[in-house]
Amino acid sequence: MSSTRMLKVGIVGITGLVGGEFIKIFDQRKFPIEELRLFASQASQGQKIRFRKQELPVQTLEPDCFKNLDVVFFSSGEQLSLEWAPRAVQSGAMVIDNSSAFRLNREVPLIVPEINAHVLKSTKPMIIANPNCSTIQLVVILGALHKTFGIERVHVASYQSVSGAGKDAIEELKSQCIAILNNNSVTPQVFPHQIAFNNIPQIGTFEETGFSTEETKIMNETRKILDLPDLKISAFTVRTPSLNSHSEAVWVTFKTKTNKEQVLSLLKKSPSIQVIDGISENKYPTAVQASGTDPVYVGRVHQDLSDPFTWIMWIVSDNLRKGAALNAIQIAEYIYKIEI
Amino acid sequence: MSSTRMLKVGIVGITGLVGGEFIKIFDQRKFPIEELRLFASQASQGQKIRFRKQELPVQTLEPDCFKNLDVVFFSSGEQLSLEWAPRAVQSGAMVIDNSSAFRLNREVPLIVPEINAHVLKSTKPMIIANPNCSTIQLVVILGALHKTFGIERVHVASYQSVSGAGKDAIEELKSQCIAILNNNSVTPQVFPHQIAFNNIPQIGTFEETGFSTEETKIMNETRKILDLPDLKISAFTVRTPSLNSHSEAVWVTFKTKTNKEQVLSLLKKSPSIQVIDGISENKYPTAVQASGTDPVYVGRVHQDLSDPFTWIMWIVSDNLRKGAALNAIQIAEYIYKIEI
Repeated sequence: MSSTRMLKVGIVGITGLVGGEFIKIFDQRKFPIEELRLFASQASQGQKIRFRKQELPVQTLEPDCFKNLDVVFFSSGEQLSLEWAPRAVQSGAMVIDNSSAFRLNREVPLIVPEINAHVLKSTKPMIIANPNCSTIQLVVILGALHKTFGIERVHVASYQSVSGAGKDAIEELKSQCIAILNNNSVTPQVFPHQIAFNNIPQIGTFEETGFSTEETKIMNETRKILDLPDLKISAFTVRTPSLNSHSEAVWVTFKTKTNKEQVLSLLKKSPSIQVIDGISENKYPTAVQASGTDPVYVGRVHQDLSDPFTWIMWIVSDNLRKGAALNAIQIAEYIYKIEI
Repeated sequence: MSSTRMLKVGIVGITGLVGGEFIKIFDQRKFPIEELRLFASQASQGQKIRFRKQELPVQTLEPDCFKNLDVVFFSSGEQLSLEWAPRAVQSGAMVIDNSSAFRLNREVPLIVPEINAHVLKSTKPMIIANPNCSTIQLVVILGALHKTFGIERVHVASYQSVSGAGKDAIEELKSQCIAILNNNSVTPQVFPHQIAFNNIPQIGTFEETGFSTEETKIMNETRKILDLPDLKISAFTVRTPSLNSHSEAVWVTFKTKTNKEQVLSLLKKSPSIQVIDGISENKYPTAVQASGTDPVYVGRVHQDLSDPFTWIMWIVSDNLRKGAALNAIQIAEYIYKIEI
């Protein structure tokens, strides 16, 4: 039972895919809300969004719009967070920011609650960063394993769904599928190339290193969350024509030798993780099965035949939930000691 | 100009996807055919297939069916090759077998012509194995690099299209897409799970090691073709909802330090390879672009920030062409000194 006070909550970016997940998850977890204030761009003015039998108006960001709010969730991209998140803090709110704006700022905690909530030492208004979707699901697994085995090296290849690129991206995948199945040509708008029936090795833009921004996020954010600044981690990220949930093929090299039973046992007793590992029955997690659910799923756990310290696994989670809205809400639950 | 004699050729498995590619490629390369004998199962009897203005009947396999043939291409699965390939050799034909039946047999050469044609020292009738589709495109790149830099370690995560699983698999992907876009449920038949809008981390069946048969093929065949029996190579294979061409995210650790210019320069001058590496303009190979073409494409070549000896790249090729029929035909071209 919770003895928590009711919170006054704001969501910036309510009309996006992640915004919509906040509303769903608040309901599912009976998040203690006294007031909910919803923000989006001018284009969404006049819209109303149903929440707990109320029709809430979508507002625009204005001076004083965060007044009296306890916590504001930002999910509207880097530029908007850079401008408005500090104002929300100034007005006395805790900010939990889903953009990449502050994630690598040394003064901003970057939190996956199951792994590093302990770095949150104060409840005074500040910006707390929510990690990148593909980072969160990876770190839930790596963090659980690191405490016992010590992590030396990580290789991750991702299979990321289009929902991570927003509503237009979902529509682009669907409409391209229909066009191609009808032998019509397609003109990419959201993605740099045709996404239907293809695999695109680009998420974000490219840096001088040759890595994409998504890959750099995974590598840097993982190091920060695990507090392993020198961790050898290498990411390659790919958009596949899946609708929702990201999958990752991961090689993890431990500092210590172990066996499959120990690895699985540790994963099974770690929070937020669900093991689906029954290859004799073709059982392992997939994006379709994970969508709409909360856990980080892991399966196909097996030892690398060419290196006994390395373990291979397949990690899947809903990028809009644990990868975004759910993790942000769990940060708030930790701060305000909300039991669910 | 070629001074080759005309060949009497058989194809076993003509009604499959790879069988169809043989016909296309023979035409495109003006392969010197005096007689073409086409074989398939009883179910295809009565069918005729057009080749160079002739309507050729599809025949069943029978005693003496290979009589007087110079070379027989098998592309009908392991069991059929095990039974019939030795009979074709007995009747005096060279067999180029696209199944996995003989690939790891020590007495059978496993050939990617650009890399290890030199092991073909005799032209007497024998079985020559054509490697697995996902192996071939990997080995074309690894083989080109190994000669100069020496390969120490390989990680590969694959993004494989459904055409590798045959015509029924293509139909399953298409019909599942249509069903899901119309909010209907799907029942997987060819694949163990829904393939539309999903990623399935299983190709083939699973072995006791935890690796799939596809992964084991890549690892063992790469070692054999490169003649590196102790090569540390680890593969993770995934079916993505792409129609044709396989993609691979690859980490290659060299024995020597090098730089991007040297790596690209070597790749560009190696046979059958086409480099598409222009990330500043979002240029890299994709499955859709590679389909229906001959090269092995490589792009996104960059150095691993956490290990200067390791290079990351994205390799794409048409799995029905270089991954199957084209490589088999190139083996025959090498044996019979056919210039194209």
